[in-house]
Amino acid sequence: MTARDVATRRPQASEVDTREQLLIAVNDLIIERGLIDVSFSDIAQRSGVNSALIKYYFGNKAGLLMALLERAILPSLKQMEILLKLPDSPQDKLRKHIMGIVNTYHRYPYVNRLMHYLLAEGGDKYKTRITEELVKPGARGQEIILQEGVEKGVFRPVNPMLFYYHVIGACDHFSHGRFSLKHAFGVHSITDDLKREYVAYLCDSILNGILRKE
Amino acid sequence: MTARDVATRRPQASEVDTREQLLIAVNDLIIERGLIDVSFSDIAQRSGVNSALIKYYFGNKAGLLMALLERAILPSLKQMEILLKLPDSPQDKLRKHIMGIVNTYHRYPYVNRLMHYLLAEGGDKYKTRITEELVKPGARGQEIILQEGVEKGVFRPVNPMLFYYHVIGACDHFSHGRFSLKHAFGVHSITDDLKREYVAYLCDSILNGILRKE
Repeated sequence: MTARDVATRRPQASEVDTREQLLIAVNDLIIERGLIDVSFSDIAQRSGVNSALIKYYFGNKAGLLMALLERAILPSLKQMEILLKLPDSPQDKLRKHIMGIVNTYHRYPYVNRLMHYLLAEGGDKYKTRITEELVKPGARGQEIILQEGVEKGVFRPVNPMLFYYHVIGACDHFSHGRFSLKHAFGVHSITDDLKREYVAYLCDSILNGILRKE
Repeated sequence: MTARDVATRRPQASEVDTREQLLIAVNDLIIERGLIDVSFSDIAQRSGVNSALIKYYFGNKAGLLMALLERAILPSLKQMEILLKLPDSPQDKLRKHIMGIVNTYHRYPYVNRLMHYLLAEGGDKYKTRITEELVKPGARGQEIILQEGVEKGVFRPVNPMLFYYHVIGACDHFSHGRFSLKHAFGVHSITDDLKREYVAYLCDSILNGILRKE
């Protein structure tokens, strides 16, 4: 490795680090507060990065929140692409898909609020990106699994759009509802066991709900 | 009716009107914006009631939002009480219950965001009121219907807490997701027909999901 390699590589690595460091700070603040309402000065204080740099990397708050949203969702869309190519049965694909969404929302319980916020406030640029990059590929993947199940005679035909809202809402609300979980049910944190129990319950319930009856 | 009756009644009637007028203004602003972030001056401008009166009626913003939340949820809890006393089968009770929640969220799509906001930010007073008055009675009603179904041999036993998050999430997300509905699915408004289609789909799916298999 020459001195020149080091000189040209280091700034890139540190840019990646600073960007990721900022996103981790926003992620943590949003999860702690349970609200997506965080200011540049909160983020600067938490990350130790000054707010001029936040502007440099993300332009404005919407740009920062969009990057946070992509960071949370893109990996699970990548998983969906892989899942669709597996030789598994449609039932198993659906189970893996539901487990994947529950896990994503468990890790990033703010995802739907953030998406909703950007769709309402972020302007047309973000609307198109969210729709084309994040919502449609997920919905399309579900539709392919449902269609495959119908063709193989295991699922009854259902409207994929209605199915989408049912599944996403159910997966999301469990993690998002952690405040009511605590107060109404005395559950202070969603342990891995409880998450697994929810996944098992939800997979059984949703699959029973669409299986073609003998 | 004496002059005294009129003199003592009128202020009460007008108080009710002003209070309701303020709640309608907040309701409309939140629905239009898709966000619960409204200021006293926005409300004053929309309602034509000055902001000193908002403080007089509700104390502070949390008090106002709590009143809005109760206005949205209490009627459906009243319906739940009536439903539990009907001679209907557990399946029919569950269908009516699901239809009731979808209708409530369709009319007040902000309910869960508002509850979440008050649980996160409203302080202990609101936590207790929301938990005891709004969340627990609804969850308890569901549990009674599920239990009745298990006793009559029509439902398989499921964890009522997991069922609660499944049903509430699915009912809520459809109305809350109206922005993504528009962009990702080209559905510009949730018509009564589409709402009925969702209720029918969801009732079938959730009931099939918990029916005891023959």
